[in-house]
Amino acid sequence: MTIEQPKKPTEVIFTCSGTAIGKMRNDLQVKMVEPMLEEFTMATDEGPFHGGDATAPPPLALFIGGLTGCIMTQLRAFAKRMNVEINDLQVDCKIVWQWTPKDRIYETAPKAFDMEISIDSPSAIEDQLALIQAARKGCFVEQTLGQSNKITHRLKTEGGYMRLPS
Amino acid sequence: MTIEQPKKPTEVIFTCSGTAIGKMRNDLQVKMVEPMLEEFTMATDEGPFHGGDATAPPPLALFIGGLTGCIMTQLRAFAKRMNVEINDLQVDCKIVWQWTPKDRIYETAPKAFDMEISIDSPSAIEDQLALIQAARKGCFVEQTLGQSNKITHRLKTEGGYMRLPS
Repeated sequence: MTIEQPKKPTEVIFTCSGTAIGKMRNDLQVKMVEPMLEEFTMATDEGPFHGGDATAPPPLALFIGGLTGCIMTQLRAFAKRMNVEINDLQVDCKIVWQWTPKDRIYETAPKAFDMEISIDSPSAIEDQLALIQAARKGCFVEQTLGQSNKITHRLKTEGGYMRLPS
Repeated sequence: MTIEQPKKPTEVIFTCSGTAIGKMRNDLQVKMVEPMLEEFTMATDEGPFHGGDATAPPPLALFIGGLTGCIMTQLRAFAKRMNVEINDLQVDCKIVWQWTPKDRIYETAPKAFDMEISIDSPSAIEDQLALIQAARKGCFVEQTLGQSNKITHRLKTEGGYMRLPS
């Protein structure tokens, strides 16, 4: 299938509406809003260690799945356009986070992100390397992780939304 | 359920092994490796626009689901420890990315991350705000997005792994 690429810069917008149910489960209604509307139903939960019922994968499983899937999608999408043949593709991703107790709660920080890419391809290694570098720039998740992002938070109150300091 | 929190700093490690199948589908075997072993099976796919068969949500749906679920989990996990009552919890998250065509491929960049949090709670607003700020620090995904991360990539070749320049 030939992919028709828009000619002009555009925005890609996703929304997620999460509802807490059960002990630690979150039902998630995810929408792609732009460039077209698509809807997806998913959920997260926690295992017994974190007080949950393990009815769905934990949030970090979705997170690493999103990162791995994103780079894999970009590799295959760009391969055709860069004339790199891919017979088979395997990506192994590993993320290490630091977890630090602080009084009765804890704080977290990312430590390492590693990807091993196996491409079964008759194309030259330098072309495969060029494909990977292009895929990294086209991968929404990798580009997001590569920069410091500001997340705004608002709490709904009876008097309206309160914006939290960053 | 009372959660027994480890006393010492520890690492939380996730791995994801992705296999490309079909047109754009990726089968993902996700493992929590530390602090305990848990396994999860998931997949990503793309819609017809991106040359896929839409057999699973796209990677960005998993990504926003992971972010939303992570902060929601932290809010409920910390609420008990910070004596904030939560009767109901709803979080609406929106992410905007920029998509820019470049020759036959494209580049991407994150633009905005917004969260609206609704807590049905008899606790004081200032206690709810303190809970949210603590949950942000305990949320692995938010802490990851808040800093610039380096992702290493290695390509498997017949002569061993080649490390890509960053």
